[in-house]
Amino acid sequence: MKETRNFVLRGNICYSLDPTTLETIEAGYLVCEDGTSAGVYRELPEQYAGWPLKDFGDRLIIPGLTDLHLHAPQYGFRGLGMDLELLEWLNTRTFPEEAKYGDLEYARRGYTIFAGNMKRSATTRACIFATIHRESTVMLMDLMEETGLKTMVGKVNMDRNSPDILIEESAEASARDTLAWLEQIHGRYENTRPILTPRFIPSCTDELMGRLKEIQRDFDLPVQSHLSENQGEIAWVKELCPWSEFYGDAYDHFGLFGGGVDTVMAHCVWPSEAEIARMKERGVYVAHCPQSNTNLSSGIAPVRTYLDQGMNIGLGTDVAGGTGESVFRAMADAIQVSKLRWRLTDDRLKPLTVQEAFYLGTKGGGAFFGKVGSFEPGYELDAVVLDDAELQHPQELDLAERLERLIYLSDDRHIAGKFVAGRRIF
Amino acid sequence: MKETRNFVLRGNICYSLDPTTLETIEAGYLVCEDGTSAGVYRELPEQYAGWPLKDFGDRLIIPGLTDLHLHAPQYGFRGLGMDLELLEWLNTRTFPEEAKYGDLEYARRGYTIFAGNMKRSATTRACIFATIHRESTVMLMDLMEETGLKTMVGKVNMDRNSPDILIEESAEASARDTLAWLEQIHGRYENTRPILTPRFIPSCTDELMGRLKEIQRDFDLPVQSHLSENQGEIAWVKELCPWSEFYGDAYDHFGLFGGGVDTVMAHCVWPSEAEIARMKERGVYVAHCPQSNTNLSSGIAPVRTYLDQGMNIGLGTDVAGGTGESVFRAMADAIQVSKLRWRLTDDRLKPLTVQEAFYLGTKGGGAFFGKVGSFEPGYELDAVVLDDAELQHPQELDLAERLERLIYLSDDRHIAGKFVAGRRIF
Repeated sequence: MKETRNFVLRGNICYSLDPTTLETIEAGYLVCEDGTSAGVYRELPEQYAGWPLKDFGDRLIIPGLTDLHLHAPQYGFRGLGMDLELLEWLNTRTFPEEAKYGDLEYARRGYTIFAGNMKRSATTRACIFATIHRESTVMLMDLMEETGLKTMVGKVNMDRNSPDILIEESAEASARDTLAWLEQIHGRYENTRPILTPRFIPSCTDELMGRLKEIQRDFDLPVQSHLSENQGEIAWVKELCPWSEFYGDAYDHFGLFGGGVDTVMAHCVWPSEAEIARMKERGVYVAHCPQSNTNLSSGIAPVRTYLDQGMNIGLGTDVAGGTGESVFRAMADAIQVSKLRWRLTDDRLKPLTVQEAFYLGTKGGGAFFGKVGSFEPGYELDAVVLDDAELQHPQELDLAERLERLIYLSDDRHIAGKFVAGRRIF
Repeated sequence: MKETRNFVLRGNICYSLDPTTLETIEAGYLVCEDGTSAGVYRELPEQYAGWPLKDFGDRLIIPGLTDLHLHAPQYGFRGLGMDLELLEWLNTRTFPEEAKYGDLEYARRGYTIFAGNMKRSATTRACIFATIHRESTVMLMDLMEETGLKTMVGKVNMDRNSPDILIEESAEASARDTLAWLEQIHGRYENTRPILTPRFIPSCTDELMGRLKEIQRDFDLPVQSHLSENQGEIAWVKELCPWSEFYGDAYDHFGLFGGGVDTVMAHCVWPSEAEIARMKERGVYVAHCPQSNTNLSSGIAPVRTYLDQGMNIGLGTDVAGGTGESVFRAMADAIQVSKLRWRLTDDRLKPLTVQEAFYLGTKGGGAFFGKVGSFEPGYELDAVVLDDAELQHPQELDLAERLERLIYLSDDRHIAGKFVAGRRIF
């Protein structure tokens, strides 16, 4: 029996309308009708008067957060070994660890920790990389399904420039295994969807990319990958695909770069003007991962440019380039690095505001999942209840200030409840 | 009756010998004799066999952390309103809040929160700014004394360029009140010392600086202030003190810049070569405050230069330029901003390593308090016990890796015990 998803939440409600407009309603009512927002009200309309009401008192209620980019198999080494740049870090730290996920017993240990912590986080939606291993990818999807979060999870494709311990034997084998994976999970989940996941151009042959496009088309799959993270990586892509106009063009060439294909590209730290124009034209989503770009000495993405251009953009934690799964921390990091970029690199691009960072972590990234990340009528009702009582202060604070403090100071202790598409998961 | 401070701690012990040498001893013994380290041993020497032994099992034992710079009255607005640069931020956010500390009832609320959270932190030593208000400064010192931390606390001096609500009426009045403060606290504390605290050159007249030098000499006081944080601030100092060779010279001119006077200067983001040379010559301590320098868009200090020059340097959280009191977070921030500086500004200055950041937060800053911040024999026994069991992971980790994870991921939940100069405070 499916539970009813018609109810009312009462509390201090905050949500974004657009990057610069934060709505704050003290002691307001958020109405959920069949898993979808029926609006936020200062007084409860009469037609909802008889509905079940949960009063969260002085707590805050905000939209669930979206993490547009993270790697589940890297969660076990979060906060470790971050003294290398991207390409060396992949070979030294990341690939050897990911290779272990061919072992289902190890994978269960690692993915159980990951899924448990994701459940307790403020995240309700996420785009997740697994590894090349089909069976453990399905295990990860099973575990994520149980959390109640709505996620897209990808079996990774890699058929070149990868160590023997973490490579698929051919483009054909990679494609075949991807098809077997899609068959295995067909109809298996309510919350969990597959997403096509070529790791990045350097680890995927042209032949593989061509086959992945066929699969993408046949199954109407979304796509996630990495783009223009590091200057060495960009130069390498130019060598590998001399025919490409720029890095993103190497995806676009195979029809895996937006334009009718839901696509999210992580990082976009060093885009060319032509790349920005193409991303905008194709509606490609940027997953801005500020902490990862710092830890791996990649640089600072021009987020102000992306916002000014009205492009699709949200936040990613990029565990384990980033050290944890907190999208609040990603919001704070996004503001902080934007200030350093303004000070040190280009003072024409204004730093991000708190409102903008909150938008990116809610409605900005949520849009990749449809009408997600706000409480406007018609949005799926993802909500997080926050309790800031323990963050003591001597002065009066308004609701926007309380939200700002939670962005900078909160951790999982402050999360008092979470709803995904109208279903309470804790 | 004074408790005995002869005992042995057993656990996984980590401490720095120098910036690049981290000692790690699994299941080792740390001997405390009269509040001071008598060394770390793999096997317990026979002469200590009968001493009380506290076994912390698989937990880590590290030196207490030193916070060389933070503002107690700003703790209440940590994580709030960080969309301004330094000088505007002071006038808009900071000075109005500090002005409230003339009200003892408000001060008790704010300082009680601050002292409680400092006690629970991994910090054992700190250099703290209060406000210009004598009575509430004494209240803060009383509260810090009760925590058991060893701190230096300063009544702030400000007699120019400050709003009416937060200014002393003359140099003479400021000096007189400082003397009254020193008289009031004379002999009052075991853990808490006064430190002379001219806010910064822009808010102290030459006359006041001259009087403060007399007080410094008469009472043999240490000194704390701010230096070269922001380019607008530096230009202003040049206008205010046209006779100064550089910002630091404006302190040195009055004999308040090291050279026999224990001096710690916060920030040092934009030093000239002459300023660096003078600081080195005078043995001035740098309090590197990476998060504050980011939040206020100040820039990134050349920490690699300070280390290469063998200068005195430690870390500061600079609450509320920084958002919290965690020196672990300051370590992580120091590494992270050093990577961005290397990538974006000057690739001749290598990023900091984890070992170096740990050194800065322990032995580097601890040296301002004497032999503090290591477990080598003769060091005062400040120790923090860390429990990382809750930070789950699927793979084996060695001790250095466990410490690295705690630097990036820990919060107050992971602090299982704290000792200051051989006294357990929780």
